[in-house]
Amino acid sequence: MNTTNNSIGIVTVKTAQICTAEDPLLLDSGEQLGPIDIAYETYGTLNADKSNVILINHALTGDAHAAGYYSDTDEKPGWWDTMIGPGKAFDTNKYYLICSNVIGGCKGSTGPMSINPKTSKPWGLTFPIVTIRDMVHAQKKLLDHLGITRLLAVAGGSMGGMQVLQWAVSYPETVRLIIAIATTSTLSTQNIAFNLVGRQAIFTDPNFKNGEYYNNAIPEHGLAVARMIGHITYLSEKGMRDKFGRRLQTAQDYTFNFGQEFEIESYLQYQGKRFSERFDANSYFYVTKAMDYFDLAHETGSLETTFAQVKSNALIISFTSDWLFSPEQSKDIVRALIYNKIPVSYCNIYSPYGHDAFLLEAEQISRLISGALYNTFRDIPNQEAD
Amino acid sequence: MNTTNNSIGIVTVKTAQICTAEDPLLLDSGEQLGPIDIAYETYGTLNADKSNVILINHALTGDAHAAGYYSDTDEKPGWWDTMIGPGKAFDTNKYYLICSNVIGGCKGSTGPMSINPKTSKPWGLTFPIVTIRDMVHAQKKLLDHLGITRLLAVAGGSMGGMQVLQWAVSYPETVRLIIAIATTSTLSTQNIAFNLVGRQAIFTDPNFKNGEYYNNAIPEHGLAVARMIGHITYLSEKGMRDKFGRRLQTAQDYTFNFGQEFEIESYLQYQGKRFSERFDANSYFYVTKAMDYFDLAHETGSLETTFAQVKSNALIISFTSDWLFSPEQSKDIVRALIYNKIPVSYCNIYSPYGHDAFLLEAEQISRLISGALYNTFRDIPNQEAD
Repeated sequence: MNTTNNSIGIVTVKTAQICTAEDPLLLDSGEQLGPIDIAYETYGTLNADKSNVILINHALTGDAHAAGYYSDTDEKPGWWDTMIGPGKAFDTNKYYLICSNVIGGCKGSTGPMSINPKTSKPWGLTFPIVTIRDMVHAQKKLLDHLGITRLLAVAGGSMGGMQVLQWAVSYPETVRLIIAIATTSTLSTQNIAFNLVGRQAIFTDPNFKNGEYYNNAIPEHGLAVARMIGHITYLSEKGMRDKFGRRLQTAQDYTFNFGQEFEIESYLQYQGKRFSERFDANSYFYVTKAMDYFDLAHETGSLETTFAQVKSNALIISFTSDWLFSPEQSKDIVRALIYNKIPVSYCNIYSPYGHDAFLLEAEQISRLISGALYNTFRDIPNQEAD
Repeated sequence: MNTTNNSIGIVTVKTAQICTAEDPLLLDSGEQLGPIDIAYETYGTLNADKSNVILINHALTGDAHAAGYYSDTDEKPGWWDTMIGPGKAFDTNKYYLICSNVIGGCKGSTGPMSINPKTSKPWGLTFPIVTIRDMVHAQKKLLDHLGITRLLAVAGGSMGGMQVLQWAVSYPETVRLIIAIATTSTLSTQNIAFNLVGRQAIFTDPNFKNGEYYNNAIPEHGLAVARMIGHITYLSEKGMRDKFGRRLQTAQDYTFNFGQEFEIESYLQYQGKRFSERFDANSYFYVTKAMDYFDLAHETGSLETTFAQVKSNALIISFTSDWLFSPEQSKDIVRALIYNKIPVSYCNIYSPYGHDAFLLEAEQISRLISGALYNTFRDIPNQEAD
């Protein structure tokens, strides 16, 4: 544990049952899901009028552990620890933060690893398909469970940003400020293509067995390949070149075999292996598919029409070298918000880190976020602050 | 067969043994390879002084069949039929064209599918690693075999373009004009990363069995995934969006299952399946690895130094939306040629087709190539034309 950087220290993950079998969640697919557990963490202190609540949404492979450490021996803090803590962008001295694991995930919330009460076996690929909107509906039920009716802000990057946008559309009265980073209002053709290939790589692994592997060896190799594909899309071409170039891992010169030879090869294989040890292959299917379906213009025909109901202020951030969810995709969001006269701040941050910049450019993002939060919090009318 | 577009009609593939077991090819790895067969095709007629010979180099998954049809019932002609034929860019009324399959390939030239004479079994992954330079050395031996000492031009796109550049470096006295399209002088970090992931996807397939699958089921699924990854890199993001968007394959609306739902998904899976039926997985290992090793600055420390020995004129072509081998990579080639006072023409062609543009933008490429060939052919001194 390294608490020199204003870490919030030790945190614990909690679990709430937000739906029962008798009172299930109606999913976009038409299926009903219940019971549903949601794993979540909170940081900071809820104020008296509950006006300081910020919901943090994680990305594809993230979880509820956004900040702090689980124990003194943890080497790494939560995934957005640089952003969350006393004096940080999401200042736990002022704000009360909630971060929850998505449904369909594998880090404590109900997903394909969970037991299907009807069969007493893990759901696997019989788990119903969930959408980004389903994830948001489940989060709303978590807030209901916690007795929270309004959000100062909803924030997140990548898939977390999709949930942010969905919040503004689905619950316009609830959210004062949306902070959507390195995200998109709709998965592009190329995004869908990369997700497909990741799933197909998992499907190729003989251990996958169509998702029924929980009592056997996991499809670690296929999942690692999926992660490697994803990882390439998270880095910019230039970022990769600057970091790894064509450097060789150990040998002085080419070894003329198929082993890990270039540094980039061993880096990706290491990342893939590590990921396959911590993430569930079936969840990878569900969460990528939820992203594929994400298209805020799907039902209305245009993003402008969908955003007509938005009442939140907006802070939209993209990164110059992000080619997974490009600045152009963020600008589409900004244009549609402006069309609807939504107060929106937009910044396209110069960064060589590609999509990963939403995790790495904490300093630049922090300035934008702390300002936007400050203004939004300050502007809450007195009657609501009572 | 569709011969309305000035096709050269029926062609046949020939095979030449260019090395024997007793007189093998010394490879860059230090290994010796022999016997070596090379599959090749020729189009047009060799002129009296053998001054009209053009060597065509194929890309990663191409072969010696660059133009024409094998039979009246063939649906598709060779891979560059739009460019090769009477009156076309590579005008078979004037020039004599040779296209050969690379060593390490699977379309008639010696590669991992071939029988290792020492074991009487297919080489599989015991086949020695080959480099782009090894491929070019083998081609040179094919020319020796055919009694051809000078080349009017060497041309090719993508990996074919790498061989083109290698020709200019390895055999400067032989080549009058190099035509390198949508290529690079060195594989970038991202290029290496994508190649690794393709090989890892094949490796994940239980049928791959470390390359020893020739008497059993082939690793078609892993090979298909590798092809899908490749295919994404061959198209531009915009090109994909324009062609497929988020259109659904058959259903009117989302089906909420993991089947082929979006058009891009069924397109990629179809392309993957078709590819796995026609290409050898082990060859995919060898040819991608040959590309990984390609770095013309590796031995000298700089491309400028390597190109000091070049004596050919050069035509370099890139495409605006090619992100696999980007215009910037072509410009690096152009700058290093100019540094060495090589006469070079460079054109960055506007195209939405990404890397595939070298196969699709025939009309635009043709104008550049026919002009460059005309000038080079015209300038051959009389003493050589005797």
